[in-house]
Amino acid sequence: MLEALLALDRDRPGVGERLIGALREAVAQQRIAPGTRLPSSRDLAADLGLSRGLVVAAYEQLVAEGRLVSRRGSGTTVAPAPPPVPASAGQPSPPPAGRVAPLRPGVPDLGMFPRAAWRRAYERALTGALDSDLDYTDPAGVPRLRAELAAYLGRVRAARTGADGVVVTTGAAQALGLLGRVLAARGMTDVGVEDPGSAGIRDHLLAYGLTLHPVPVDERGAVVSALGRMQAVFVTPAHQFPTGVVLAPGRRAELIDWARRTGGLIIEDDYDAEFRYDRDPVGCLQGVAPDVVALVGSASKALAPGLRRGWLVPPPAWLPAVRRAKSDADMGGSALEQLAFAELLGSGGYDRHLRRARRAQRTRRDALVAALRTHLPQARISGVAAGLHLVVELPSGVDDRALAARARSAGLGPLALSELRHGGDGPPGLVLGYAAQTPDELTAAVATLAGLLP
Amino acid sequence: MLEALLALDRDRPGVGERLIGALREAVAQQRIAPGTRLPSSRDLAADLGLSRGLVVAAYEQLVAEGRLVSRRGSGTTVAPAPPPVPASAGQPSPPPAGRVAPLRPGVPDLGMFPRAAWRRAYERALTGALDSDLDYTDPAGVPRLRAELAAYLGRVRAARTGADGVVVTTGAAQALGLLGRVLAARGMTDVGVEDPGSAGIRDHLLAYGLTLHPVPVDERGAVVSALGRMQAVFVTPAHQFPTGVVLAPGRRAELIDWARRTGGLIIEDDYDAEFRYDRDPVGCLQGVAPDVVALVGSASKALAPGLRRGWLVPPPAWLPAVRRAKSDADMGGSALEQLAFAELLGSGGYDRHLRRARRAQRTRRDALVAALRTHLPQARISGVAAGLHLVVELPSGVDDRALAARARSAGLGPLALSELRHGGDGPPGLVLGYAAQTPDELTAAVATLAGLLP
Repeated sequence: MLEALLALDRDRPGVGERLIGALREAVAQQRIAPGTRLPSSRDLAADLGLSRGLVVAAYEQLVAEGRLVSRRGSGTTVAPAPPPVPASAGQPSPPPAGRVAPLRPGVPDLGMFPRAAWRRAYERALTGALDSDLDYTDPAGVPRLRAELAAYLGRVRAARTGADGVVVTTGAAQALGLLGRVLAARGMTDVGVEDPGSAGIRDHLLAYGLTLHPVPVDERGAVVSALGRMQAVFVTPAHQFPTGVVLAPGRRAELIDWARRTGGLIIEDDYDAEFRYDRDPVGCLQGVAPDVVALVGSASKALAPGLRRGWLVPPPAWLPAVRRAKSDADMGGSALEQLAFAELLGSGGYDRHLRRARRAQRTRRDALVAALRTHLPQARISGVAAGLHLVVELPSGVDDRALAARARSAGLGPLALSELRHGGDGPPGLVLGYAAQTPDELTAAVATLAGLLP
Repeated sequence: MLEALLALDRDRPGVGERLIGALREAVAQQRIAPGTRLPSSRDLAADLGLSRGLVVAAYEQLVAEGRLVSRRGSGTTVAPAPPPVPASAGQPSPPPAGRVAPLRPGVPDLGMFPRAAWRRAYERALTGALDSDLDYTDPAGVPRLRAELAAYLGRVRAARTGADGVVVTTGAAQALGLLGRVLAARGMTDVGVEDPGSAGIRDHLLAYGLTLHPVPVDERGAVVSALGRMQAVFVTPAHQFPTGVVLAPGRRAELIDWARRTGGLIIEDDYDAEFRYDRDPVGCLQGVAPDVVALVGSASKALAPGLRRGWLVPPPAWLPAVRRAKSDADMGGSALEQLAFAELLGSGGYDRHLRRARRAQRTRRDALVAALRTHLPQARISGVAAGLHLVVELPSGVDDRALAARARSAGLGPLALSELRHGGDGPPGLVLGYAAQTPDELTAAVATLAGLLP
């Protein structure tokens, strides 16, 4: 049963909540059979490298939910029959097994994944594939997908590349890993990262032996003058994570100038650019300066993270080293799912899905903003024009980490703004995702959240 | 239809192969119409005065080639649309674009990929997936696939592991990369590789900053006494590449003893263990010493390299670091193709495909050996009991590299034995793959090859 739990990343915040979620899912899906006796909290804590308190709390939570049974003398066992899922209600029922905690940023609505369109695309790929398509592929990706991605990125993101310039990856994480390997091999280990910024990205870059330096973010985006002697910088120009700020035109020019002057590399993470609502599209930086920008993107937000579809467009001078790193990493990805993604792009199915998803997400954003205005009228809301999350600035003095922890205990998934800072100061706040819940669920979640405020 | 087959001369050797050839030709020329139901193997055997086993083997070969379709309950029928007829016969025409050069080792017959079974497995995976299956997965792989792989490896390879111990990879290359990263991080950079051995593997390990040392291979496999102060060793115990030697029992014990005594890691590449013909299965080393062996395998030979399905079973003490390396590399693989592979394994479809492919490959090996005996009667052939390639030892003084180069100019794909040596001495030879061509094509290729000999 432990495999369900070993996926927990002990080093990311919220491990207790993730432990509860993983246990809940394992029980709900009967991956641990009803009646199974669980290891003692002491043993499980040792196995997982967690404190025993976290395991005790997780067991208690699931006992309270009726999924586990605890009897003095006979330990903790999985409840005989899984409890019925609450049909519905006015107030938020505990999320069904495997559901995303409401307000958790960074995940799309997995229920929106276009299964029928994807099935058709995969079938067409499988039917149309030549035998030779099933051989080892070009490590940079199958040519048809690279051509479709080049066309898509040119059309939708104003990127400047051809099929040859695209490296297909399994997601942004792999793209960053490839760049990290090449940066480390070139001795370009001083890398700036936005502050506040994604904690996951920081962890990921650190794994490649890079030294990270915070780059402050203000209302015009990353402060380029702070780059100093850094050799590369990770930025989110179209929609800064988490603040939602757009990198201002002057800053964009400054950033490109910095890179050209110093030989630095700009890593542009275009993580949710497909979702914008009330503003003109902001073309990617790569389209303006393909010589110094590595464009990173994925379909994790637009389709699903579990599909592992991503791409990387490095500067032409970096391409041979990146191709080599991709070959060293995995000799290229699965041919059939690459061909299926090419089908989805080429047939217009991806665009159709995005239009539908964008409309749904705009409705959710509107519902979240309306609920915040009702229940937290004093809060300053920002970063709403695009993306799948927004930021609620809290009155100074509020401990946002404690609030986020209370929210997690209540089954919600917001991040504290201060958890995403590394060094920099700023007001407390919460980062709220709205992609994975219906408007009603979001409204109920905000009502719960408001009740937790001091 | 039988008149096409009644011309077979039962009394000349090779009747099985001629039966296959006659059936293939009858189908290709539509002398037996698409959709026609063939007589049962029992009836046809009686009609032709052959053993039933020969007819069963012929049917299976043509099913594997996609020319016949076999369905439980409805017998064997001619496939709906026959595959295109090869342009010519007597001399090998240049391979069509994307075809594998005849005699190239290391590639399976991509035309044998079980498209229908894979489509069904993928559809079931897509239909059965929970929304939460589409979220970021456990980086070590989806639990269901890990459980199926653990069961499969235990059953077929006598491996000792549970689902928890398996890390799903995109192929052997990624598995070696993960181990390479961990070895380098631990300062265990002195790694032995078999000599002769795979040049691709050597390149791959070098990319991770390891220092490689040749380990001679004799008729009992890798010479363990040569390991000295190395900290890890890459071996192919079940079927050494390229020589085909099986690591002798005494050497296996010696190798495990070396690892336990020195803390060294044994990397066991089980690259083509599913294919054995005239010998008992050789269980993997990992099953004997899971504490010091990392088992590496893939479905690249059994299904197709382009599917990128592989696995790694590291020693338990290495598991956390390997999991972490996998997370850093790509945060886990595509959920749907993992679930599809689990379906294929769990439904028995993988076993069925392997049985079929094994029989077809045995026929091809027999054809290659027979052609070599005819056209190169002086050559010593070895490594024929298993795998998808064999070695032809050439008279000393023959320049095998020059011969391989001439063969490549003639459209063939053999490797020179000396290209696979790094340091060690030995007779010249050629490594010939037989997996990707029909018996007739192999016979023609050997005739061409013989004409190139000095």
